[in-house]
Amino acid sequence: MSVTYPAGFTASGVTAGFKPSGLPDLGVLVGVPGTVAAGLFTTNRVSAAPVRLSRARLAAGAPRAVLVNSGQANAATGAAGDADALSSTVLASAALGLEAGELLPCSTGVIGEPLHLDLFEAAVPALVASLSPGGGDAFARSIMTTDTVDKQAHADAPDEGFRVGGCAKGVGMIAPDLATMLVFVTTDAVVTARDLHSMAREQLGSRFNSLTVDDCTSTNDTVLLFASGAAGGASVAPGSTAWMHLCEAVGRVGESLVRQLAADAEGANHVLIVEVTGADADQDARVIAKAVANSPLVKTAVFGGDPNPGRVLQAVGASGVAVDPGRLDVWFGETQLATGGVIAPDYFTDGDRAGAARLHMHGRDVHIHVSVGDGNGTSRALGCDLSYDYVRINGEYTT
Amino acid sequence: MSVTYPAGFTASGVTAGFKPSGLPDLGVLVGVPGTVAAGLFTTNRVSAAPVRLSRARLAAGAPRAVLVNSGQANAATGAAGDADALSSTVLASAALGLEAGELLPCSTGVIGEPLHLDLFEAAVPALVASLSPGGGDAFARSIMTTDTVDKQAHADAPDEGFRVGGCAKGVGMIAPDLATMLVFVTTDAVVTARDLHSMAREQLGSRFNSLTVDDCTSTNDTVLLFASGAAGGASVAPGSTAWMHLCEAVGRVGESLVRQLAADAEGANHVLIVEVTGADADQDARVIAKAVANSPLVKTAVFGGDPNPGRVLQAVGASGVAVDPGRLDVWFGETQLATGGVIAPDYFTDGDRAGAARLHMHGRDVHIHVSVGDGNGTSRALGCDLSYDYVRINGEYTT
Repeated sequence: MSVTYPAGFTASGVTAGFKPSGLPDLGVLVGVPGTVAAGLFTTNRVSAAPVRLSRARLAAGAPRAVLVNSGQANAATGAAGDADALSSTVLASAALGLEAGELLPCSTGVIGEPLHLDLFEAAVPALVASLSPGGGDAFARSIMTTDTVDKQAHADAPDEGFRVGGCAKGVGMIAPDLATMLVFVTTDAVVTARDLHSMAREQLGSRFNSLTVDDCTSTNDTVLLFASGAAGGASVAPGSTAWMHLCEAVGRVGESLVRQLAADAEGANHVLIVEVTGADADQDARVIAKAVANSPLVKTAVFGGDPNPGRVLQAVGASGVAVDPGRLDVWFGETQLATGGVIAPDYFTDGDRAGAARLHMHGRDVHIHVSVGDGNGTSRALGCDLSYDYVRINGEYTT
Repeated sequence: MSVTYPAGFTASGVTAGFKPSGLPDLGVLVGVPGTVAAGLFTTNRVSAAPVRLSRARLAAGAPRAVLVNSGQANAATGAAGDADALSSTVLASAALGLEAGELLPCSTGVIGEPLHLDLFEAAVPALVASLSPGGGDAFARSIMTTDTVDKQAHADAPDEGFRVGGCAKGVGMIAPDLATMLVFVTTDAVVTARDLHSMAREQLGSRFNSLTVDDCTSTNDTVLLFASGAAGGASVAPGSTAWMHLCEAVGRVGESLVRQLAADAEGANHVLIVEVTGADADQDARVIAKAVANSPLVKTAVFGGDPNPGRVLQAVGASGVAVDPGRLDVWFGETQLATGGVIAPDYFTDGDRAGAARLHMHGRDVHIHVSVGDGNGTSRALGCDLSYDYVRINGEYTT
C-alpha cells in the first residue's frame, strides 16, 4: 500500500529479465488524465539517458506516468542510450494508450550496459495487463536492485481527506554497479504543476539530499511527485491550511522513506543522524552535517560502537566552514563529550560519561549533535556506519 | 640514513612512555646554528596546540630544531594544551642549549588526551645524551604511531655536493585516534628562509597534498623543511642551476616519502594513482583526481580487483567540476575502458579489454587515467584501496 494508496493511480510490476536474478525488474505507475508531476534529478554531470529524457518531458509537457526498469542504468551509453530510452517509452506508451510525452523513463542498474529493448517489447503486454489500483506493492518490488527490502510509506491529511503514498529504492548512491536512488510519491489532491514542484523541492528535496550512504551521487537519482487530483475539490494552494496539511503528509512519507533507505544502506547496522545547530546559516550547518556523516573515521567508529568526539571535531574542522574551534560542543545521544572544543577529560578515564555514550552506540539509531556557535543555522544529515559488509558488497568482483 | 644524511644535523629518539606499547615515542632533530626552516601546516580549523605554537615560532624567529612526541596529539585540549606545548619545549630547549623559540613542537596520537609533562621531564636527559649525526633512524622510528614501517628517504644533488634527507609518518589522515601525517626533510645547502619556504611549497606541498587515504585532514599535519647550510658556499637562489638541482633532490625525497605513506596506509593493499589530463586548469584536474581517489566505490573496486569505469565516470561527474560528459576517456593501466563518455561495449562481454584491465589491477600500483577534454590542466592524486582492514583498524573499539 504505497504509490497506489491515493485515488487515481494504478501500478504494476513484472519480470522482464533485465536482472539475472529473475526477480521483478519492470514497473509502471500511471495517474488518471489530469495528473500533474514534479521531478528532482541527479546533479551528477554524467547523467543517464532516462534522466535527460524525463527532465525534458517534465519541462515540455504534462507527464502522468513513469516506467522503471532495474538491471541496466542506461548511463554512459552515449547517443545509443538516448535512442533506447526513447524507444522504451514509445513501446510502453503505445500499449498504455498514452502519448509518449506523458511517460517518464527511469532506469537503475549497471552503468554502461545497453538496455535490452527486446525484453521490454516482450514484457510490456503483461505489464499493462496487470495494472491495478492495488499494484503499488508489485511496483515497489520491481524497482529494487540490491535492496534487501522494499521501501513503502503512506500518510493522510485527514481534515481534507487527502492521501499520500510513496516508495523508494537505493542502498548506495551507487550499489555494486547498480545505480541510484529512485523515489516516487503520489497524492490524490488537486495541485498545480508549479505548486507541486515547490512542494517536491521543500518536502522531498531537502530530506533526500540529507541522506548520504557513501557521498556518491548517482548518475540516475530521481525523485518524482505525482498529484492525480482524484480527491476532487479546488486546487490546493500555498498559504492555505490544506496546503500545510498536505505538505505535512508528503513530508511524513518522505521522512519514512529516507529512514528506510538509510536503514537498508549497504552493509549498514546503524542509522547515523547528525544534527548541527548554532551555525551562521542553514547552508553552513548542512555542509558540516554532511562532512561528519561522510567521514570514514566517524562511520567506522559508529560501526565499532566507539563514541569518538575527536573524530567528530576533526570532521567539523576540515569541513571548509569557518567554525570557531573554541565554540564546538559535541553530544553522542544525550551525553556531552566535548565542550568549547575541549574533550571531556573523564572521557579518557572511562568514567560514567564514556559509559553512557557507549551505551547509546548500541542502539539502531546513533545521534550525534554538534553545536558550532549561537547562530540560527541548523541542519541534519542521515547516514550509516561503514562496515565490513560495505567493503564486501562493493569490493567483491562478480563477472 | 634520512634526516641526518645531510651535514649539520643531529637527531635521536627514545622511549618516554607516551605510548602503551613501550616503543620509542620521543624524538628530536637539531640543526647547527644558522639552520633555517620552512613549514606547511594542516588547514583543519581545529588545529592542535603544537601546530599553533610552531606556526607562531616560524613566523617570529629562526627555529632550527623540532621536538616530536607520539602518543598524544595535544589537539582539542584547549588553553591547557597550549600551556603544555609551551612547557614541553621549554623543558627540552633548556637541556639542548637552545632558545625556546628555536624549537618547534610536533605531536601525534590520541586527540583530546593531555600531554604527560612528567614523562617529558624524565626522558629529556636521555634524549639529549643520545643526539648524534647517525640518529636519523632512531628519530624516524620515534615518530611512528600505527605505521607498520618507518619511512625514510635521501637524495643528492651531485654537481653541487648537496644532500637531502627526509622521514615521515602517517597511515590515515587520522589513524585509530592516532592523528596525523608528519614529514621532516633536511638539506645541507645554504638557502634563505624565504626561498626555503617557496621550495617547501612547490616541492613538498603539492606532493603531500595529493595524498589521500580517507579524505580526513588531521588536526596536526605538519611538513617541515630544514636547511643547515653546512655544505657551505653561497646561498642557493631561485633561477640558478643549483636551485633546480636542489629542488629535484628535495622533490625526489618527497616523492619517495609520499609513496611510502600511501603504501603503508591503513589496510591498503594497493597504491592508487589517479592521473587527470585535459582539464581547463590544474585546479580542476586536482579536484577531479581527488574525487576519484576518494570515492569509496572506486576504492572498494580497487580492493576487489575490479576495473570499473562506471564508478570512475560517476566520481568525475559528481566532482563539482563542469566537465563535458561526452569528452570523458578512462584508462585502467594501458587499457582504455571508456571513450567519449561511453563505456566500451566489449567490457560487458568480458573480452580481451576487460581481461587486460583486470590483470593490471593485480599489481601493487593501480593506475587510473582520466582525460576530460583538450585543456592543459593536469594533476595527480595518490590514494589506496578501501579494505576490510581499514574498517577493522578504525572500527575496533579498544579501551
